[in-house]
Amino acid sequence: MNISIIGSGSFGTALSIVLNDNGHDVLIYGRNESVIHEINTTHTNEHYLKSITLNSNIKATTDLDKALNNSEILLLSVPSKALRSVCELIDQFATKNNKQFKIIHVIKGIEKETLMTMSKVIQDTMQHQNIQGITVLSGPSHAEEVALRKPTTVTVASKNKDEAEFFQDLFINQNFRVYTNDDVIGVELGGSLKNIIALAAGILDGYDMGDNAKAALITRGLAEISRLGKSLGANPLTFLGLSGVGDLIVTCTSTHSRNWRFGYGLSKGKTKDEVLGELGMAVEGLNTIEAAYKLSQTHQIDMPITSTLYKFIFEQLDKETCFDLLMNRKRTTEE
Amino acid sequence: MNISIIGSGSFGTALSIVLNDNGHDVLIYGRNESVIHEINTTHTNEHYLKSITLNSNIKATTDLDKALNNSEILLLSVPSKALRSVCELIDQFATKNNKQFKIIHVIKGIEKETLMTMSKVIQDTMQHQNIQGITVLSGPSHAEEVALRKPTTVTVASKNKDEAEFFQDLFINQNFRVYTNDDVIGVELGGSLKNIIALAAGILDGYDMGDNAKAALITRGLAEISRLGKSLGANPLTFLGLSGVGDLIVTCTSTHSRNWRFGYGLSKGKTKDEVLGELGMAVEGLNTIEAAYKLSQTHQIDMPITSTLYKFIFEQLDKETCFDLLMNRKRTTEE
Repeated sequence: MNISIIGSGSFGTALSIVLNDNGHDVLIYGRNESVIHEINTTHTNEHYLKSITLNSNIKATTDLDKALNNSEILLLSVPSKALRSVCELIDQFATKNNKQFKIIHVIKGIEKETLMTMSKVIQDTMQHQNIQGITVLSGPSHAEEVALRKPTTVTVASKNKDEAEFFQDLFINQNFRVYTNDDVIGVELGGSLKNIIALAAGILDGYDMGDNAKAALITRGLAEISRLGKSLGANPLTFLGLSGVGDLIVTCTSTHSRNWRFGYGLSKGKTKDEVLGELGMAVEGLNTIEAAYKLSQTHQIDMPITSTLYKFIFEQLDKETCFDLLMNRKRTTEE
Repeated sequence: MNISIIGSGSFGTALSIVLNDNGHDVLIYGRNESVIHEINTTHTNEHYLKSITLNSNIKATTDLDKALNNSEILLLSVPSKALRSVCELIDQFATKNNKQFKIIHVIKGIEKETLMTMSKVIQDTMQHQNIQGITVLSGPSHAEEVALRKPTTVTVASKNKDEAEFFQDLFINQNFRVYTNDDVIGVELGGSLKNIIALAAGILDGYDMGDNAKAALITRGLAEISRLGKSLGANPLTFLGLSGVGDLIVTCTSTHSRNWRFGYGLSKGKTKDEVLGELGMAVEGLNTIEAAYKLSQTHQIDMPITSTLYKFIFEQLDKETCFDLLMNRKRTTEE
């Protein structure tokens, strides 16, 4: 089958390997000419996937129309803040060429201005007759390990069971186990909100607070993610699954994670911009904190970790006060 | 307040520091004369808590009667397989001296022969008029970090709210945050069964399977723990809390954990006895696998990780077949 991957970053490139292993023809679209040239000539993408060689069947292009002509199956893998403009271009193409797309996205973020999850942004920007279905793929899946074919499990969620099973069949193989789910908003929120907790975990680790503190952060973080998710219509049980606790664990405990590395850098006294400069990639968690903070205010959900982190990062509240806010609240039950 | 700690291992000793910090008088009972002598003279317990100096107010004794005379509050912190005989001695003392004890235990295990959790063993061995209440303390709390006063959160669970709040007050301080809960069996099972998954995590790490695989293990492990717990009368939500997912995370991702280290040693081709010899401490997970495997058979609960691990350890099933059993099951939804 022909599949076009929109976005030439780490995860899009890693998934091109899975799809190629499964016998599909993959074309990657990206705007960065040197990355696209590198994929086509040396079959590498060193900046985003160090030391990985791609099969030479995997092709890339900077021509969006060519990518959209290539297939009606699109895998969207661009930074969350680029999604709206990319979808507008896809929609124009679809309308002009009277084409309908089956879309799967792998983007973990919430649009800061509108507080929409990514499937909502897709719906919001495209004419409905141009979309055959929207599916999300998420779970504990560091791109580096997916590219190395290490055992990985993910969830694909769609409101339409056939769509979910279509993508389950497309991706599943002996190293990449795919489960289906119907809770699109739950899967999207788990994947997005976990970046907040990962960023906080990086800070804790930087301050050498210990494993007990980190486990407390993850557990209580999961509790507040579930509270917000429930109020936005997600099934709370989704947060117990791969796209919830699974992704939360992998992001909080692995030094691969950009969000963790960003938090770690902050704890070492660097500024936001210094750490971003060093990483050289988007840090979704930073936008997500702002979005989640706004959502918690609007929906009046108690999110002590998110709001403390917001104050630490955006209002320069000192570390000791932050710690006090979290550890010395009134004694309570576990609920 | 006077408190007697029965058991002079890592966690009992670490909790003596918390209780001493809170102004209580602590007497530790242990059978090992050299450990007790060391606590009383150099105020250390090097084998169980490296590089920690205890306050000289913390006393220890090898005389069980003296410890039982000292207080009616007992903190039980012995290996699970020693609990029954210790409780029989306590019961004899209580009956003879017409004394009633308030008991809190911190033991993570299931009795292999009877498949009882620890609170059930206590109830089973003591005359009910000799027990004022049974509470369990559990959560993500490596003894080494508790002893260093690093931030730690735990749960105390009792069917009796007053008992739970009594122990919450006894232990809580600015480094040691205590939540209450009423699900004794859920808290006990979370703490015990997580050792199985930690042991499996050590094996995965030893084989260098990666972070994605470990997150999958923890997530699917949590799913099967919840399934078993529910069938034994626990509240499934308890497994989302500190004594469930919290303790699971800390045990699976920290090299402090004996269960993790045991699994890691096995993956390096060592025998069970070799690894146990190197660790020089009880590995609760090893007994718990047998207990959980029996429980899953009796109650007909699907526990693929536990049963595969049982076959790997006790029936020498090879690594490749085990992996295949877990990754190549039929495609399914996430539930």
